[in-house]
Amino acid sequence: MVSRTDVVAAARRIAGHVHRTPVLTSRTIDALLGAEVHFKCENLQRSGAFKIRGATNAVRSLAADTEVVATHSSGNHGAALALAAAEAGLRAIIVVPRDARPSKRAAIERYGAEVVVCKPTLAARQTTLDDVCRRTGATFVPPYDDERIIAGAGTAALELLQDFPRLDQLWVPVGGGGLAAGTVVAAQGSAEVVLAEPALACDAKTSLTTGVICDALPPKTVADGLRTALGRRNFEILYNVRTRVYLASDEGIRDWTGRLAEIMKVVIEPSAAVTLAAMAENRSAAKGTVGVILSGGNAPLEGF
Amino acid sequence: MVSRTDVVAAARRIAGHVHRTPVLTSRTIDALLGAEVHFKCENLQRSGAFKIRGATNAVRSLAADTEVVATHSSGNHGAALALAAAEAGLRAIIVVPRDARPSKRAAIERYGAEVVVCKPTLAARQTTLDDVCRRTGATFVPPYDDERIIAGAGTAALELLQDFPRLDQLWVPVGGGGLAAGTVVAAQGSAEVVLAEPALACDAKTSLTTGVICDALPPKTVADGLRTALGRRNFEILYNVRTRVYLASDEGIRDWTGRLAEIMKVVIEPSAAVTLAAMAENRSAAKGTVGVILSGGNAPLEGF
Repeated sequence: MVSRTDVVAAARRIAGHVHRTPVLTSRTIDALLGAEVHFKCENLQRSGAFKIRGATNAVRSLAADTEVVATHSSGNHGAALALAAAEAGLRAIIVVPRDARPSKRAAIERYGAEVVVCKPTLAARQTTLDDVCRRTGATFVPPYDDERIIAGAGTAALELLQDFPRLDQLWVPVGGGGLAAGTVVAAQGSAEVVLAEPALACDAKTSLTTGVICDALPPKTVADGLRTALGRRNFEILYNVRTRVYLASDEGIRDWTGRLAEIMKVVIEPSAAVTLAAMAENRSAAKGTVGVILSGGNAPLEGF
Repeated sequence: MVSRTDVVAAARRIAGHVHRTPVLTSRTIDALLGAEVHFKCENLQRSGAFKIRGATNAVRSLAADTEVVATHSSGNHGAALALAAAEAGLRAIIVVPRDARPSKRAAIERYGAEVVVCKPTLAARQTTLDDVCRRTGATFVPPYDDERIIAGAGTAALELLQDFPRLDQLWVPVGGGGLAAGTVVAAQGSAEVVLAEPALACDAKTSLTTGVICDALPPKTVADGLRTALGRRNFEILYNVRTRVYLASDEGIRDWTGRLAEIMKVVIEPSAAVTLAAMAENRSAAKGTVGVILSGGNAPLEGF
């Protein structure tokens, strides 16, 4: 099981390779949400998302003779692993489904990784990846169900709590559960961790209510980073502390993506707006002094 | 003449009323521009621009019996004065030309100021303002040609140089010259201050070359915050140290406004992109370790 000590070790391991992201506040947003919000801006992180924390922690934890890493990703994890590998002098191969957004694929290639395209099914992703690993001897770095990834993701909350030790709540979006589980481990009871999920992808809420990991729903939400089901390790950490999950409508997610750019002048991707939409749609759920992790900013700009 | 001591005093006066804005970096941008750039993010400042620094410094320097302040503005100074006055418990009246962007007017009203609309000419702005001041006893707070405004604007560079004392250059956009002059005073020779101006509004370059303040050009550039001519005090400070001015095309300004959102995930207004466009269009002008003040983020989002 991942411990807070692992998060602290991850923070030391990734220092200098990732940004210590700024924490922003806005009295206008506070008035709209009825809470005092501290935004940890992982959208301003290297590679545009918190994912570089876990990817860097994983890459820097590998055996010294590792030469190639690989993963499958249609989004931020692929770009993060590409960047983390390039900086560590490793070769990276990313399996990308044919229907991935061209901008995501371009980011992966900009960081110098090789892209292998596969059919847009989970089965095809897995068999293509297995084939890549067998063929090249690459080490698989999973996107979220991995202790090094969870510990790395937890460093965002660790930094936020170093800057603001007295937060009542810490709100994070939940998809596969890397950021959510990492935040729970980093906070370790010092602040309540509250999860936010698109209503169109509410599998985490169902899983944490029933105690059984349920499958991902059809990929309908605009929050494309949150369409996956919980990982096993992630589920266990979240279920242990009975984490609450609040839902947000896609309309609210779109609305808050735009509002944050308008009011706070930062670009976030829809997956990062789900916390704000959930707060606004579940009045009285957000209380007191609240930390919010803005998970990423890799939105297509035509979305504005 | 404004001195560095005035900037330090301004920093003390406005502390707690404005954000200490973050400084961001991007290796992608560095590679594109051929310099190591530190971005002082005044687009993330309260009211969305550095203008709140000067407005707060001016308002907090007024005689204790002042009850009303006024100015004319089609842009960020009006919103900044409205906010600074509201926080100090003063009434604010802003004269706004009829053709100002509705979003700018909305911001002024959101901060609780009264808006008086006038015809869109410089003469109408001045006579309407004179009338407001006579009628209400309001104290005029000018947008840039004012020692308190210059000293306040200089606090952005002061903070940046506290965080990064060894900058070779400090790039700032120039319009009326409040930010430019304040930066020169704050830097006081510790870093070379370099100005950037739209080619379509190159009056500051002409003024600083000929030694005579020249009039504003027709308002054609997209960088609407930089259309004004230099103020007298501002000109004197800039001319004294023979500040260099580089020009940027409107095409480059638009391009870099979008690029910064795409690469760095921050929203800037076109007036804040002129430094980047000028660096890109004048190769070898930017050298070594460079500070750039991103002056504001109040862009209409439909601009993306």
